[in-house]
Amino acid sequence: MSIEQMISEHPDVGDDYNGALGQAVRRAMYCAAICNSCADACSAEDMDMRQCIRLCMDCSDVCEATYRVSTRRTGHNRQLIRTMLAVCIHACQLCEEECARHDNDHCRRCARMCSECAEDCQRALETLNDEAHADAEVSTFEHDAA
Amino acid sequence: MSIEQMISEHPDVGDDYNGALGQAVRRAMYCAAICNSCADACSAEDMDMRQCIRLCMDCSDVCEATYRVSTRRTGHNRQLIRTMLAVCIHACQLCEEECARHDNDHCRRCARMCSECAEDCQRALETLNDEAHADAEVSTFEHDAA
Amino acid sequence: MSIEQMISEHPDVGDDYNGALGQAVRRAMYCAAICNSCADACSAEDMDMRQCIRLCMDCSDVCEATYRVSTRRTGHNRQLIRTMLAVCIHACQLCEEECARHDNDHCRRCARMCSECAEDCQRALETLNDEAHADAEVSTFEHDAA
Amino acid sequence: MSIEQMISEHPDVGDDYNGALGQAVRRAMYCAAICNSCADACSAEDMDMRQCIRLCMDCSDVCEATYRVSTRRTGHNRQLIRTMLAVCIHACQLCEEECARHDNDHCRRCARMCSECAEDCQRALETLNDEAHADAEVSTFEHDAA
Repeated sequence: MSIEQMISEHPDVGDDYNGALGQAVRRAMYCAAICNSCADACSAEDMDMRQCIRLCMDCSDVCEATYRVSTRRTGHNRQLIRTMLAVCIHACQLCEEECARHDNDHCRRCARMCSECAEDCQRALETLNDEAHADAEVSTFEHDAA
Repeated sequence: MSIEQMISEHPDVGDDYNGALGQAVRRAMYCAAICNSCADACSAEDMDMRQCIRLCMDCSDVCEATYRVSTRRTGHNRQLIRTMLAVCIHACQLCEEECARHDNDHCRRCARMCSECAEDCQRALETLNDEAHADAEVSTFEHDAA
Repeated sequence: MSIEQMISEHPDVGDDYNGALGQAVRRAMYCAAICNSCADACSAEDMDMRQCIRLCMDCSDVCEATYRVSTRRTGHNRQLIRTMLAVCIHACQLCEEECARHDNDHCRRCARMCSECAEDCQRALETLNDEAHADAEVSTFEHDAA
Repeated sequence: MSIEQMISEHPDVGDDYNGALGQAVRRAMYCAAICNSCADACSAEDMDMRQCIRLCMDCSDVCEATYRVSTRRTGHNRQLIRTMLAVCIHACQLCEEECARHDNDHCRRCARMCSECAEDCQRALETLNDEAHADAEVSTFEHDAA
């Protein structure tokens, strides 16, 4: 089952499917789940993992909102998708950095997940910035042409 | 990246990994995302999709809570996992039934997703019920032995 | 700002506003927030709070889904509201019991919150069960009259 | 029951309670609930409300993540709270603008809610920016003093 195909079947998407954004949605969905699991696993460890629990819970919440907002294609809200992708990159980088300090398998897996999520959100953000430039050019052109 | 492997790396899990429950977590995570997408796609359709939007949003919320609760392995809360799996099966069946009435690709995909999620939650629920029976037997045995 | 008034302004509600259900929505919304805060506060305590963190996170997730599902009035999904209210009562009772074991102000506050939420969900559940009985009577009557 | 008092009872908070941030948490919690309700009510209206449904669902998701992240006080993640407050202001302004276009009671209530939430997040953001300046001064001072 693919969330990317699901988005491509949205009635307003048609040929205009943004693959990088679809990929970021899928990664942020996974990262929300992995960070939720890591927060729980950290709380069962014997060493002091409180900062790691905090960052994992925060990252899970941010990834969750990011993937849900970035999934939608009805009407328009692209600028909000851009700001959510940016804050998601931020949350993932902070969580990756903290998880990378710990030697547990779950922390190492979570750090990799956060790193991949940040990369995919970055790539999606660039395509949206490109589109924004293209839109700006079109609208400048239309203005000049008027 | 696998949420099932992540759960198996929890410090309290060890050899005791419940594969059916891990699979249900993954499916419910996906089903939350697919239903969130279907609610949005339905709102862009020209026909009256209000009942479908409602059931997809409800199903997404229930799947989300189900997968998050069912992921955790610290301490114990198995009885709550059981009741959440049961309500998730219920939500998925209602959403599948409604989505199956519509001819859109996204509704058909969402119906399949809900059906698969309900099946996996059912399978996971049975393993937990079996464990509960086993626990009850052990505790009866312990009681008799005392 | 009142979530109860908001629900009463839904176009399909009219004179049919269920006050007990509106009250349960507000309490479950608060309980989701209080449990989220208690999980975080518990992880900062020096004693072993892992079981309490687990139950607070679980309860927060369940309350969140419960209030979101129980808010909606478009079309119909009353049976799912009933099952979510029931699982919410369960989650709140488990969390209250665990929090009541600890002497921290935040745990005591969280225990009270869970207790109030369970009561309000119980009251709302009873009104929905009454309505279900009434519906069943009406439909028996209609059947007899036919 | 008060989420602000709850946060003030966190073991790491002590005298250092940020009232403006506590108020923003409460407002964002409410705004998540009101926007979730407005999206549902909009889908029951007879006119074309698809853009309003979209913005309300997006705003609900963002407010939800914002209040959950902004609640936590264990360890530190203040920079992420700042970026979430900023994106929450953005989401609320977009949603307010759209809801203000419609004459339904629920849209007018949602617009007011979004406006209040944006204001409180702005106020909280300013206190955090002030603290950041203060920290920077302290750390400059400490550096100079070393």
